[in-house]
Amino acid sequence: MTLVASSIIAGHPVTGNAGQVCGVNPATGEILEPTFTFVDEVAVDQAAEAAWRSFDTYRGTSPEQRAAFLELIAQHIEADKDRIVERAGLETGLPQGRLTGELGRTTGQLRLFAEELRIGAHQEIRINSARPDRSPAPAPDLRQRQIPLGPVAIFGASNFPLAFSTAGGDTASALAAGCPVVVKAHNAHPGTAALVGQAVTRAVTEAGLPAGVFSQLFGAGSSVGQRLVAHHRIKSVGFTGSRGAGIALMKTAAARPEPIPVYAEMSSINPVVLFPGSLSNGAQDLAAGFVSSLTMGSGQFCTNPGLIFVPTKDMGFIAAAGSALASAEGQTMLTAGICASYLDGVTRLSETPGVEAVSEGKEQSGRNAPAPALFLTSTDTFRSIPELQEEIFGSAALVVQYQDETDLASALETLQGQLTATVHAVEEDSLKVQAILPVLERKVGRILFNGWPTGVEVNDSMVHGGPFPATSDSRTTSVGTLAIYRFQRPVSYQNIPANLLPEALQDANPWGLPRRVDGVLHS
Amino acid sequence: MTLVASSIIAGHPVTGNAGQVCGVNPATGEILEPTFTFVDEVAVDQAAEAAWRSFDTYRGTSPEQRAAFLELIAQHIEADKDRIVERAGLETGLPQGRLTGELGRTTGQLRLFAEELRIGAHQEIRINSARPDRSPAPAPDLRQRQIPLGPVAIFGASNFPLAFSTAGGDTASALAAGCPVVVKAHNAHPGTAALVGQAVTRAVTEAGLPAGVFSQLFGAGSSVGQRLVAHHRIKSVGFTGSRGAGIALMKTAAARPEPIPVYAEMSSINPVVLFPGSLSNGAQDLAAGFVSSLTMGSGQFCTNPGLIFVPTKDMGFIAAAGSALASAEGQTMLTAGICASYLDGVTRLSETPGVEAVSEGKEQSGRNAPAPALFLTSTDTFRSIPELQEEIFGSAALVVQYQDETDLASALETLQGQLTATVHAVEEDSLKVQAILPVLERKVGRILFNGWPTGVEVNDSMVHGGPFPATSDSRTTSVGTLAIYRFQRPVSYQNIPANLLPEALQDANPWGLPRRVDGVLHS
Repeated sequence: MTLVASSIIAGHPVTGNAGQVCGVNPATGEILEPTFTFVDEVAVDQAAEAAWRSFDTYRGTSPEQRAAFLELIAQHIEADKDRIVERAGLETGLPQGRLTGELGRTTGQLRLFAEELRIGAHQEIRINSARPDRSPAPAPDLRQRQIPLGPVAIFGASNFPLAFSTAGGDTASALAAGCPVVVKAHNAHPGTAALVGQAVTRAVTEAGLPAGVFSQLFGAGSSVGQRLVAHHRIKSVGFTGSRGAGIALMKTAAARPEPIPVYAEMSSINPVVLFPGSLSNGAQDLAAGFVSSLTMGSGQFCTNPGLIFVPTKDMGFIAAAGSALASAEGQTMLTAGICASYLDGVTRLSETPGVEAVSEGKEQSGRNAPAPALFLTSTDTFRSIPELQEEIFGSAALVVQYQDETDLASALETLQGQLTATVHAVEEDSLKVQAILPVLERKVGRILFNGWPTGVEVNDSMVHGGPFPATSDSRTTSVGTLAIYRFQRPVSYQNIPANLLPEALQDANPWGLPRRVDGVLHS
Repeated sequence: MTLVASSIIAGHPVTGNAGQVCGVNPATGEILEPTFTFVDEVAVDQAAEAAWRSFDTYRGTSPEQRAAFLELIAQHIEADKDRIVERAGLETGLPQGRLTGELGRTTGQLRLFAEELRIGAHQEIRINSARPDRSPAPAPDLRQRQIPLGPVAIFGASNFPLAFSTAGGDTASALAAGCPVVVKAHNAHPGTAALVGQAVTRAVTEAGLPAGVFSQLFGAGSSVGQRLVAHHRIKSVGFTGSRGAGIALMKTAAARPEPIPVYAEMSSINPVVLFPGSLSNGAQDLAAGFVSSLTMGSGQFCTNPGLIFVPTKDMGFIAAAGSALASAEGQTMLTAGICASYLDGVTRLSETPGVEAVSEGKEQSGRNAPAPALFLTSTDTFRSIPELQEEIFGSAALVVQYQDETDLASALETLQGQLTATVHAVEEDSLKVQAILPVLERKVGRILFNGWPTGVEVNDSMVHGGPFPATSDSRTTSVGTLAIYRFQRPVSYQNIPANLLPEALQDANPWGLPRRVDGVLHS
């Protein structure tokens, strides 16, 4: 199999003449062959129309057919695993071990949604039986199921070239829901996107599905991406990236003649709160854990801990963290642009009145591997300067010293929405934790104890989401099985004749779905 | 108990000086005492802040406490039933029988949500147990529940002074979810709103809840309503009304620094499709049923059938419908403004090239009781003039004659989103119905067979929603138990110590909630 350097529209390779891009090795600056051409609005239209034409057929597939399709995608990605990991490493600077793990996560996600389809809880089947003798009027037979929204535009993310890109969590959950997908590939890893896109395309063919179920376009975000979101055949959007780009997509989607839901995961600084008891138990270990989480993957995680609240009596935590960070070495960042933004952010923070530098790590000798940085401020300064909440994508964090729980709570109340909040506490801190838990619940999608936020499990209970600006829609998650609910809506059928009932709603329940029948749950 | 002619802010009556309104009897033009004063932005701020202050306490209540509160509201409404129905009749022109039924539906909804709280499925509890021995890294204990979004702004609707107003479905579902509510009362029935508002306020007090859980404001929609939706303490919006007003609220919500979800139920013309077999079975009965549904309540239902597709060989249906309509008498509409809009719409339709009048009913001698009207056009005209899809709120309908299923399908494809679609068919029509069902599913929230759309059951399986512009958010319903999901979002807890776990997530499951534990559903 050759790496085909083109967009894919409903199974067909398509080249364009609206610009071009090559992968770049951020560690060396080397330009990577081949060149990928950008498509224009005609291609956007073709991909969206092909997705639309495939929609009724694709949504008509059974859960088992769709599950088998997702598993086929996973198999084809695994079949090309070595090349995908190698190419992704060249294009992103991420280590092979990390990328091998991410590939496993990607195929694991596809299989998790396959399993979810077989369980079928997401179809939310509800039946209320007819009651012909109800007074004053008979009650009709009413049956409800969820149907998919329609074609979804999905944007590859720079920081997860596999798990949040071409066949990542958004694509897996949209396909599971029964929605065709049009991916706008991320230009920072075009070769990786192309290889994975080819794997998906093969799975579409082998599964005997209409080719329009999957397309992938290369182009500029501001043109191809925006046109895709504005296209009337696109019914929802999945995005992971910067706040600026996410908000631009939200605006475009809201301004359409028919507004559509946008699921944008945008920015989060993931506050950590250290309570006194946890420090007396081991400030050194906490400092080591914190710096390890902060610098992992060059800090390029959505859940990177960029903010940490430490009591004034910090038991040596700040000194220990500063010391651990000073010996931490920068790692190659994803792109030169991301590295430049990081350095700008660090400069901005260092020049903010009331903020002092605690420690700086070591710049790596290679390109785009800047030094981690740690800063310190007071709750007063933190409360009065909202810009201190702006995410610096990379290994920079701000320590905020708090006086007591009241001071801490008032600082936490000023927080914008976040993906996560982390609490370090021991039993003696319980009353203090109880006092701030309600504040954290209002601010975040996931609260974790005595750990670090950079690990994100993929299962039923994960919420990778949170109030704006962490995401555009706090009612959902982009990781875990609940993500499938983003791409569906309820339809109810009243007195529909048995011979016209969709399988999901038939009395005999041929798909063995969990159902709520006359108020009683049957699992 | 006296009718207090004022807004209520957290239990306190508040008068304003930003204008005033009186109820008006639309049947007579009589101005109804007392005068209600309009509040200004200071009152909006007070109500929103009071709601916010009550939020953590209110959301901390148990399902049983919240259920008992909803039941108390129902009891207090029933205790004042006669006066509420009488006042609503004066203010809306709706008959007492209808209003008595609507009051029963309103208290029934409150009790349905109380029951839903006790079942607890909406809390969507999910638990993934820790797996300390998982390789390569241990799996944490992860637990997910839904928490309420925060204070909700709810707009009373003109056409359901009880079931979609102060203590209607939006309020019941928001309170059930754990959200405080600020109601913007509808100015067409201020006395009704005030009486019901007093009943809710008494229930808040008796239940020992913070007073900020409920406020109700009188004011102009364009000022008080808009300010409420823009207020940073308001986290979601429930609305039933015109498309113009709904879209204005959507724009305001999307333009906030923190955008919030808007659930606006706006406009629908509820297509009906007659298949040939159903006509050969009884065109006369169908015509009678159609005209009865069309003229019920002066056509002032969200699900009023304003569009009906009839085969060219109509077996006398159009003539029979025209004849039935000619003898139908107008009924008092809700307001003089609504009546004027109806007459404008009828004039517009009658002047549209390609549209011909079939029949006109009788204007009633009283005020604001215009004649029902029936028009006829072809699929070609229907497809080419999008304005024919604009809702005329009232008893006017358009018959569209179709040649065959292909012609029908292509007309249906041009439809905007709708609340309902109705199919009349017999067994011999099955193949034809199967061909158009996928089209209807993509267009509507509820498909009903061999009935009329104007009855809306309140139960688990009802969807009163649909794609834009029927509503602003097709992923939900404003009627039935699923409506509670609109006002909540998931939060996950990782490795939270047992003594800090919310009751809903404790191993012992003290609230007896349905849960999904390690992938297995336990009902």
